[in-house]
Amino acid sequence: MPTLADIDTPAALIDVRRMQANIARMQARMDGLGVKLRPHVKTSKSLPVVRAQLEAGARGITVSTLKEAEEFFDAGIDDIFYAVGIAPGKLPRALALRRRGCDLKLVTDNVAGAEAVARFGKAHGEAFEVWIEIDVDGNRSGIPPEGDALLDVGRALHEGGARLGGVMAHAGGSYAHDTPEALQAAAEQERAGTVRAAERLRQAGLPCPVVSVGSTPTALSAQALGGVTEVRAGVYVFFDLVMHNIGVCTMDEIALSVLATVIGHQQEKGWAIVDAGWMAMSRDRGTQKQKRDFGLGQVCAEDGTPIAGYIVESANQEHGIVCRADGIDPRIAERFPVGTRLRILPNHACATAAQFPAYHAIVPEGVAVWPRFYGW
Amino acid sequence: MPTLADIDTPAALIDVRRMQANIARMQARMDGLGVKLRPHVKTSKSLPVVRAQLEAGARGITVSTLKEAEEFFDAGIDDIFYAVGIAPGKLPRALALRRRGCDLKLVTDNVAGAEAVARFGKAHGEAFEVWIEIDVDGNRSGIPPEGDALLDVGRALHEGGARLGGVMAHAGGSYAHDTPEALQAAAEQERAGTVRAAERLRQAGLPCPVVSVGSTPTALSAQALGGVTEVRAGVYVFFDLVMHNIGVCTMDEIALSVLATVIGHQQEKGWAIVDAGWMAMSRDRGTQKQKRDFGLGQVCAEDGTPIAGYIVESANQEHGIVCRADGIDPRIAERFPVGTRLRILPNHACATAAQFPAYHAIVPEGVAVWPRFYGW
Repeated sequence: MPTLADIDTPAALIDVRRMQANIARMQARMDGLGVKLRPHVKTSKSLPVVRAQLEAGARGITVSTLKEAEEFFDAGIDDIFYAVGIAPGKLPRALALRRRGCDLKLVTDNVAGAEAVARFGKAHGEAFEVWIEIDVDGNRSGIPPEGDALLDVGRALHEGGARLGGVMAHAGGSYAHDTPEALQAAAEQERAGTVRAAERLRQAGLPCPVVSVGSTPTALSAQALGGVTEVRAGVYVFFDLVMHNIGVCTMDEIALSVLATVIGHQQEKGWAIVDAGWMAMSRDRGTQKQKRDFGLGQVCAEDGTPIAGYIVESANQEHGIVCRADGIDPRIAERFPVGTRLRILPNHACATAAQFPAYHAIVPEGVAVWPRFYGW
Repeated sequence: MPTLADIDTPAALIDVRRMQANIARMQARMDGLGVKLRPHVKTSKSLPVVRAQLEAGARGITVSTLKEAEEFFDAGIDDIFYAVGIAPGKLPRALALRRRGCDLKLVTDNVAGAEAVARFGKAHGEAFEVWIEIDVDGNRSGIPPEGDALLDVGRALHEGGARLGGVMAHAGGSYAHDTPEALQAAAEQERAGTVRAAERLRQAGLPCPVVSVGSTPTALSAQALGGVTEVRAGVYVFFDLVMHNIGVCTMDEIALSVLATVIGHQQEKGWAIVDAGWMAMSRDRGTQKQKRDFGLGQVCAEDGTPIAGYIVESANQEHGIVCRADGIDPRIAERFPVGTRLRILPNHACATAAQFPAYHAIVPEGVAVWPRFYGW
């Protein structure tokens, strides 16, 4: 098995020890709260990572694309929730998965979508299981827990012949917080709104067995999850600088990094140029509006030790500019000579990972190649 | 052959008629200026696109990764310039390409890099051809045309046994301009600095046959290219909203778009939610600091007609938020019902294209699938 020294740059490294600790931490938390964990696999899109989550106790997976559903179903995973509002044009692919035995669950937040699923299901003799997306914080999609729209969608599904499987919410607004108190409040808001929606459906005589909530910040902050049956979370498996700024992980828990090589300098400017540009790091600037801006990433030594104050400040497609965040290091070329290898911690693990066809996973015996897929 | 209606979303569409016009325009310009065109294929990473460029008259290609060099050499293209400063650790892969018959040219901007190439070449009996990167606008890498460093690097290559093949520059600073006068001045600055560097090398008794400059804005603005032997440019093949804001293309010339489907609304906010999030569009916000901010993209009808004032304002991984740029459209759900298909023009074609495993190319007979690769 190759060692780290054999790996060409740029490469997406997984610190498997950290990843396993992150998985164990989240699973223990969900076990303690008495809910199932359904990890969102959009973060890794890699079977060895998802297998580790399932082996630790996760029950089923969440996906963001039908491609993910197809890939993981082919690998033997059949309890799959596709968490993006179903586009009517994707129903034939969803049907094909169900016909092959996949327990695929869909979601919608509107009557038109609900009717389209019910109509297509009826035409093809398939009772699709559909969940209703609830809006708990005005962040993106979903129906408010109060108001007529929720019951309208519920009835369109139930009376149209689909299986109303439950409600789900994603507290995307939690990403804006960075104190335990605010995160706990966001988690409670997510829980309360979703449970309230489920109760209203049940009071109206509609079925609602599943109550699904989730985001990494709220999952790691919730104090109690009464009425919730399962939690979805994704980025916790790797963590990243955005999660570090939110306060739900330390820098030492970030399991994904990009290995890069110094290829030149602009000494007067205090720049070292590395071969990891935005194609490797992604263009995600998630820490820009947070309490600490890491540019495009935090610089670490090749062994993973953070080098305080050094970030990837900007990038072109295959060039990253490494410098001090707070001024010019006039000795940058001595500090990081040409050929120096560095690890860069990413702002957003989901975005950075997506740039790579495979991970290089650091295991006790060396470095294993873990394939990763992309596309839709 | 499938038609556009058969294509699932999100998809990366190429308007092949526009692409061919863009290729013809740049080739005619370079022919008129009396220089060779060596297109940068990092934009498309797709053989049918690159073949169209070569068939129109391009001579050789520019690549940003050794993976691109390997893929296109395997497809029969042997005149390849790898335009990112060589990392010493990549020399074995470069050697393997040369041993297979690829006329691969490398670049460096420092003595350490030059010595590493010369030393590795001597140890393996290979005289690598290396160009020297010149810094013409303080934008990124490169050596100033004046000063000792240029001659130091030239001698390290030449006397070390490598083949000093020429000089090259990239006027990345041209992206900050948006008037013909400023762009023409940037092009002249790029030309003059690079030619000056070549003259200084020659005066010192060093060889410098190639004088290579390029960026899409300067290539389309240069009034004369005396002393230049070739021009490199990449994004012109597709164009994008950044190039539109710079003023080197019209919106009607943008050949790449993302096909998306409406999956829901937040009517009070004036939002339509589409299934093209940042995973499809990329996180590139290149128009943010330009004269017109298109968010993550300009919304068009499915047939490609721009819908003035509607942009993708923000995005999650698989959700894009479509709205008016200047306020709330209270009738957004009537305008774009669930299931509506839209095309989104990207800020930065290189970044958006990179998110897709293949293009869907609109040709007279229907829609062809053009594979695209990624990785390093």
